[in-house]
Amino acid sequence: MARKLIIIGGVAGGASAAARARRLSEDAEIIIFERDRFISFANCGLPYHIGGEIKEREALLVQTPESMNARFNLDIRIQTEILAIDPVNKSVLARELNSGREYHESYDDLILSPGARPFVPPIPGIPNDKTFTLRNIPDMDRIIRTIQTDAPKSAIVIGGGFIGVEMAEALVQQNIETSLIELSNQIMAPVDPEMAVPLHEELRRHGVRLMLGQSVESIDTQDNGLHLTLQNGNTLTTDMLILAIGVKPDTTLAGSAGLQIGPRGGILVNDRMETPVPHIYAVGDAIEVKDFISQEPALVPLAGPANRQGRIAADNIFGRQSLYGNTQGTAICKVFNYAVAATGSNEKALRRRGARYEKIYVHGADHASYYPGAKNITFKLLFDPESGRILGAQAVGEKGVDKRIDIMATMIRAGMTVFDMEEAELCYAPPFGSAKDVINQAGFVASNVIRGDHLICQPGELTNGAEDMLILDVRNADEVSACGEIEHAVNIPLPALRRSLDQLPKDRTILVYCAVGLRGYVAYRMLSQHGFKVKNLTGGYRSYQMFKNIGR
Amino acid sequence: MARKLIIIGGVAGGASAAARARRLSEDAEIIIFERDRFISFANCGLPYHIGGEIKEREALLVQTPESMNARFNLDIRIQTEILAIDPVNKSVLARELNSGREYHESYDDLILSPGARPFVPPIPGIPNDKTFTLRNIPDMDRIIRTIQTDAPKSAIVIGGGFIGVEMAEALVQQNIETSLIELSNQIMAPVDPEMAVPLHEELRRHGVRLMLGQSVESIDTQDNGLHLTLQNGNTLTTDMLILAIGVKPDTTLAGSAGLQIGPRGGILVNDRMETPVPHIYAVGDAIEVKDFISQEPALVPLAGPANRQGRIAADNIFGRQSLYGNTQGTAICKVFNYAVAATGSNEKALRRRGARYEKIYVHGADHASYYPGAKNITFKLLFDPESGRILGAQAVGEKGVDKRIDIMATMIRAGMTVFDMEEAELCYAPPFGSAKDVINQAGFVASNVIRGDHLICQPGELTNGAEDMLILDVRNADEVSACGEIEHAVNIPLPALRRSLDQLPKDRTILVYCAVGLRGYVAYRMLSQHGFKVKNLTGGYRSYQMFKNIGR
Repeated sequence: MARKLIIIGGVAGGASAAARARRLSEDAEIIIFERDRFISFANCGLPYHIGGEIKEREALLVQTPESMNARFNLDIRIQTEILAIDPVNKSVLARELNSGREYHESYDDLILSPGARPFVPPIPGIPNDKTFTLRNIPDMDRIIRTIQTDAPKSAIVIGGGFIGVEMAEALVQQNIETSLIELSNQIMAPVDPEMAVPLHEELRRHGVRLMLGQSVESIDTQDNGLHLTLQNGNTLTTDMLILAIGVKPDTTLAGSAGLQIGPRGGILVNDRMETPVPHIYAVGDAIEVKDFISQEPALVPLAGPANRQGRIAADNIFGRQSLYGNTQGTAICKVFNYAVAATGSNEKALRRRGARYEKIYVHGADHASYYPGAKNITFKLLFDPESGRILGAQAVGEKGVDKRIDIMATMIRAGMTVFDMEEAELCYAPPFGSAKDVINQAGFVASNVIRGDHLICQPGELTNGAEDMLILDVRNADEVSACGEIEHAVNIPLPALRRSLDQLPKDRTILVYCAVGLRGYVAYRMLSQHGFKVKNLTGGYRSYQMFKNIGR
Repeated sequence: MARKLIIIGGVAGGASAAARARRLSEDAEIIIFERDRFISFANCGLPYHIGGEIKEREALLVQTPESMNARFNLDIRIQTEILAIDPVNKSVLARELNSGREYHESYDDLILSPGARPFVPPIPGIPNDKTFTLRNIPDMDRIIRTIQTDAPKSAIVIGGGFIGVEMAEALVQQNIETSLIELSNQIMAPVDPEMAVPLHEELRRHGVRLMLGQSVESIDTQDNGLHLTLQNGNTLTTDMLILAIGVKPDTTLAGSAGLQIGPRGGILVNDRMETPVPHIYAVGDAIEVKDFISQEPALVPLAGPANRQGRIAADNIFGRQSLYGNTQGTAICKVFNYAVAATGSNEKALRRRGARYEKIYVHGADHASYYPGAKNITFKLLFDPESGRILGAQAVGEKGVDKRIDIMATMIRAGMTVFDMEEAELCYAPPFGSAKDVINQAGFVASNVIRGDHLICQPGELTNGAEDMLILDVRNADEVSACGEIEHAVNIPLPALRRSLDQLPKDRTILVYCAVGLRGYVAYRMLSQHGFKVKNLTGGYRSYQMFKNIGR
């Protein structure tokens, strides 16, 4: 007999599950319930339509209920909310939002893909008609309508995650004076604080007023706009407020179905996407996944994983053994002309769980520097100091950031080590890469650390006050005067170093640094072989500057 | 006692070896002999300086003998040729090219990095003063001087490899009417013939006169230029001729040293980069490597591998066990606005050695198609039809080609399968990728083929004359009229297919196709579950068109 599948939620995970289900079974009855009017829309594109980069609203409607039905023969019931699940009788209680009609619908299998809801903090003065969240098409329409009708001069975004940063950029592009308030000392939590520093600079370069370490205490609606009182007592006035503090798994239905909620607040599933309740599966932003590196529970509200989970749930329902391989959290965000991306664990997470790790920094060009248009990539690598296993990678830059993090995501998935990074054989022609790519360079540095060829000093150690080390700057004099230097540093340019050895002490550790760490390493090898005690500043002066500017 | 290392050849492999040697040993004596005046120059940048993209000639001189010596304390002897190697007495015979002085120099260890020489075919009429090859700075200077002095109106390039294609582009950028003659039916031999078709179109779009399957019989120098007679009897006149037929390992010294030459014509080394002659190592374009996929000997004259080999030779000389992990042949080339890249084995190679393989095609956008600027990537995947092991990948397109092939190169190196491609968790935000990237899509298609969910038909089978199949086009009517169709095809758009099943025969195989293969797959799943015998055309009408235009 034909199976009857109900899917709750018709965006990424739900839509993927429906399409896969139909490809596996022509005779299954497949019903999608969607609270909203829209299914399978381009969630990730919403800020870009507000900003004006995506001109046509229709471009975001990847599939309409009609087109989806024509292709996949689905019973799509939009503007219909599921009020309760009865797992014993295997049925759901649905309500048509327009008519108010309620009815029961039975299922053989149920896939929950309710997504996540924007987190709205309990700030006095919210809600009000000038405060918005952005999660779906109606949210977007409201924001655009307000911009068009009210012509706001100013806007404040609260929250420096993906949506917050993308919204700040969109508002600037609409010529609105934009401020961004973030509670922590950095935007873009998937990367570590020092890696966010170039992004802070990029936001300010484009006119965003960035307030780190700040939060809003209360909001007061007045005639001339919203008056925000910050925790530090300062007040701000704005025509428009965007809340982008994050999302929470939508687990409203979980209670009625007797589903379990995990420690992070998401629906619990196994690697077949099954909940503990028979015939109920869950996918997408509402569930907890296992982190690929730590094997710990995690919430990773991203479109790629949601799509794969939907496919896997459908596979298992229609008799195919299909397992989800955990989530690495590979993610990227555009910040005006910059991109920031990460995969695997970041240092904050490694430290939090007391994991053993080492880290290095590399700054390299996205393609051969002698070919026009080369841009710097700042690259951070986290790895196991004994095995060399890659634990995580982060990159920031104007070009080629996605490529490097995708390579690292692939390496992490394969269980590769920093020694494999040395050997990586990547595309090289001057317009596209370098004979020694940033990936290779980072592999060299990390491998040299593990082999004991290279003792490094972390820029964070220095900015927290140097020990009793001689700080040796091996850059050229013109670089020193152009870029500044570390306090108390002695400058001996690398080309002059070999003939200046007698000026250096053998009883103190020499901390050598250059612009990015490469010449520092050459100097390190020279000095250590001549019997000096040496360390090299990983990532050089550039990384040092990033650390110095954390939280600013 | 300090070791004395002689390195013959100061470009990629030799320069890398010297730098690594010094980092490992401060007291070693390191001598580099270089026939030319230049060391460590940007070989791969030469065509781009001729074309004018790289404005400054100095940008190509990555290191001068002076800067290299200041950093690494090397004895660099430029314009000095090695005439012979005496492996018994461990010495070389050197000649200073300017003075003619000859002398012996002893070594403890010797690294040969002589590179490769352009292959000059035995065509009557060569050499002449209007015919050039491009391998080094003096070659480049000669070509630029000729362009500046003689202001040639026309040029012919013989050979459609990397240098030939890059030179054709450079000459067009200098407003010279350019023809490209290639003996085989395609340019860019690293990819298969159908993948070169978009490149042929791109060359012609930019005014290059492309002559495939042609060769030059003889050349006659006359007052108004060179007169070329082709094998088909046609004659061509040109002001300038570039020979870019390929390179041959420079093995002139190998005989005197008693080194072995391999089946492909390169110097034989083991995975420590040692020749069979004690204390003689060889690296770079002059050696034979083992192909990573086939384990067969191969010549792979690329900068990345040369650099790594130089480093590994130095490691082993200075007491570190370091092994070269074979060569995948990852390569990329810019062809005006297109890039073409490949890694692993191509289909020609797999067929030649009788390997078991399957192939699929995917055409997908480099980033979310609803975000502006998305460009198509044509992707070919070769894999083992039983294990799913990835054997090779090729891509052509305007954007994101390097990223996809770098991911594939990493997967091949890790021994991953097409099932890993399904699961790949890559960066996604609309400006950078898609929730289901081209890599995931290709993984889905290939995995479905292996799982038996998807019987495919290769476009090559069709262009060689269809069997007794019903050809079913499931594109929309407007696509058919805009793009054309396969002969004798019946058009039933996918949205209408489910209600048209009674029009289709159950006794004949139905070959279904769409634009790129995705809707064809949906139709395949629908029809096969309704009891029809079906195949889906992999890569759809786009791949079919590429095959139809092979060799044109």
